[in-house]
Amino acid sequence: MRLILVGFGVVGQSFAKLLLSRSADIYSAYGIKPRIVACIDSLGYSICSGGLDLQTLLDVKKSKCTISGYGSKASFSNCDSCNIIENTDAEILLELTPTNLNDGEPGISHIISAMRSQKHVITVNKGPLAVAFPSLLELANYNSVLLRFSGTVGGGTPILDFAKRCLKGDRIISFKGILNGTTNYILSRMEEGLIFENALEDARQKGYAEAVPSLDIDGFDPAAKLVIMANWIMGMKVTMKDVNRIGIKEITTNDIQQAHKRGNAIKLIATCDNRNLNVKPIEVSKIDPLCVNGTLNAVTFSSEHSGEQTIIGRGAGGMETASAILRDMIEIKDNIVERR
Amino acid sequence: MRLILVGFGVVGQSFAKLLLSRSADIYSAYGIKPRIVACIDSLGYSICSGGLDLQTLLDVKKSKCTISGYGSKASFSNCDSCNIIENTDAEILLELTPTNLNDGEPGISHIISAMRSQKHVITVNKGPLAVAFPSLLELANYNSVLLRFSGTVGGGTPILDFAKRCLKGDRIISFKGILNGTTNYILSRMEEGLIFENALEDARQKGYAEAVPSLDIDGFDPAAKLVIMANWIMGMKVTMKDVNRIGIKEITTNDIQQAHKRGNAIKLIATCDNRNLNVKPIEVSKIDPLCVNGTLNAVTFSSEHSGEQTIIGRGAGGMETASAILRDMIEIKDNIVERR
Repeated sequence: MRLILVGFGVVGQSFAKLLLSRSADIYSAYGIKPRIVACIDSLGYSICSGGLDLQTLLDVKKSKCTISGYGSKASFSNCDSCNIIENTDAEILLELTPTNLNDGEPGISHIISAMRSQKHVITVNKGPLAVAFPSLLELANYNSVLLRFSGTVGGGTPILDFAKRCLKGDRIISFKGILNGTTNYILSRMEEGLIFENALEDARQKGYAEAVPSLDIDGFDPAAKLVIMANWIMGMKVTMKDVNRIGIKEITTNDIQQAHKRGNAIKLIATCDNRNLNVKPIEVSKIDPLCVNGTLNAVTFSSEHSGEQTIIGRGAGGMETASAILRDMIEIKDNIVERR
Repeated sequence: MRLILVGFGVVGQSFAKLLLSRSADIYSAYGIKPRIVACIDSLGYSICSGGLDLQTLLDVKKSKCTISGYGSKASFSNCDSCNIIENTDAEILLELTPTNLNDGEPGISHIISAMRSQKHVITVNKGPLAVAFPSLLELANYNSVLLRFSGTVGGGTPILDFAKRCLKGDRIISFKGILNGTTNYILSRMEEGLIFENALEDARQKGYAEAVPSLDIDGFDPAAKLVIMANWIMGMKVTMKDVNRIGIKEITTNDIQQAHKRGNAIKLIATCDNRNLNVKPIEVSKIDPLCVNGTLNAVTFSSEHSGEQTIIGRGAGGMETASAILRDMIEIKDNIVERR
C-alpha cells in the first residue's frame, strides 16, 4: 500500500514511528505493507517509488527541519504539491497540513488532486472538511475513492467510529460533547480559582494553546469538529457557517463559582440537537459523565433504543492521532478487498 | 432471517416490540426481515414456520403469562426445548433464559443444540459464557456458525464492540471497569450516608437488586462479564474460576468516608491487567472518568498508541439489551453475506 504524506509535523513523524515499530505486526494482522513513496513538507519533498526509508526520513527531518534533499533525484522541477500528488503512483494520500478554517487551503487542493487521480484520502486536517464536507464527500463518491478522517475528532479516541460502527441498528437522535481540550483545560483551571487570562497563559506554557488562541477560545475548533460529526454521523449537509458559536472569553471566575454552588461546572459544549448546531458555554452537572476535567474530550450520544452513552479520551497527541490514521488505513484496505 | 427465541421475559418481549416498531426500517437499512418461527418460555412453546405474529405473541404472553397455546398445533409432543431448537428450521437462536453461573444450564444445552444443527447463536445469558466460553467458541468454529453476545456486557452500551471494532490497528494492554449497576448504586447510596443494609434494601425496592442479591454483591455478575471480556477482547481462555473475586459486603460507611477525604470513592472494579483477572472494591479518584455514580457502568481501556479511553452507559434495561441483540443480528447477516 503506497502512501503520499503531505505535511510532516508531529502527527506525520509519529505515524512514521508507528510504522517503524509495528510494520511486521501490521502485515501479519491486517495484510498491509505500508510504504511512503512521497513525503512533502513546507520546504520541499522526497520521492522514492520503492518506499522511503522511514528512519532516514525521520533523521533528515530532525537534523535539517525538512525532508527535502532525501530520496531519489527530483522528479519535479519545483515543489508543487498538487502536481506531485497527482503524478505519483500511490493508493492513499495522507493530508497532514495545518488546519485553516478560512478556506481550507492548501488541504482542499491536495485532497481534490488526490481524488481526481483516483487516490483514497485520509485527512487529520479539519479545515477542508469544516468548509466543504458535503462537496468533498460527493467528489469522493464520484471518483469511487474513500475519504476518511478519524483523527480530526477526538485524536486517537474513536468518537466517529463509535457512532458509525457500534450503534448499528439503533438511531442516534442527538449528541453533545466537549470537543476541545484547550478550552476544557482553561475552564478547569478557572474552576481552581485562576482568572481567564492566567489560565490561558498557563495553557500556553504547557503547550496546549496556540500562539493565536482564537481557534480554541472562540470555539472555531470545536465548531469544525461539530460540522464533521453532523455530516458523518447525522447525514446532514452543513459547513462552519451553519454553527451558532460562542466562545469562553466572557466567562468569569464568578460565573464559575455560581455554577459550582449549584453542583455544576461551566463547559464549552458542542451540541447537535434537532438538527441545530451550537457551540457555547453551558452549565453541566458535576455528576454527569460528560463533565470531565483537564484536556480530556467527552461526547454523549443519545440513541432511540440503547439510551445515552458517553465516550471519553484525550482529544489530541501525535501518537494517538497517528493510531487513528492507521485505523483509517485498515478500514480502506478492508473496503478495497470487499469491492473486489 | 428466521429466529428461535428461548426465554420470553423482559428482554425477549422488548426485542419483539423493537421488531414490531422498526421492521420496515430494518429491512430498508440492513436488508433483514426477521421472523420469529419458534418461541419457547418456561411453560410452553409456539411455532409457526411462516413467523409468529409479534403483537399476538406479546398479547398472549401478557394475558396468560406464557406464549404456550399460540401458534400452529403442537409439532412436538412435549416442551423439550433442545429438541425444538434442533428440529426447527431457522438461522439464529436467541438464548434469553436467566443467567445461571453454577453450570450455565439450561443455556449451554440450548446453545449446543443450536450449533449442532448449524444455527448461529445470539445470547444475552452470561451463564454459558462464564462457565464455558473457550469450548463454546470452539464448537461454534467447528460448526462454522457465529456466537454473538453483545448484550451480556453493558446491556445496550456497546463495550465489547467498542474494543473489537473501534481500536483496530492498536493493541489493548489492559482494561478496568464498573460492570455491575446494582453494586454501583449501593456504593453510591452509601456515599450519601446510608449503611450497607439500608442501601441494599433501597436497591431492592427500586428493582435493581435480586431477591437473592449474592450474584451482585458478592461480585459474581461482574466476574462473569470480566470472563467474557477477557476471552473476547484479550484472546484469553478463561472461565469463572480464573477470577479473584471480593464483593462489597465488608465495605463500611467509615471506609467510604475515609476514601472521600482522600478525594476518592470506593467502587467495585473488575480489572484485566497483565492477564490477571480481579473483581474487588478499589478506591478511585473522583475526577477519574471511571468514577460514575448510580446504576451506570463504565470501562476504561488502555491501548498501546491511542491511550486511555472510557465508555459509559446504562448496563441494563430491556429495550437497551434488545438493541444489542439487533446489533448482533445485523453483524451475523453481514458476515453471512461476506462468506458467500
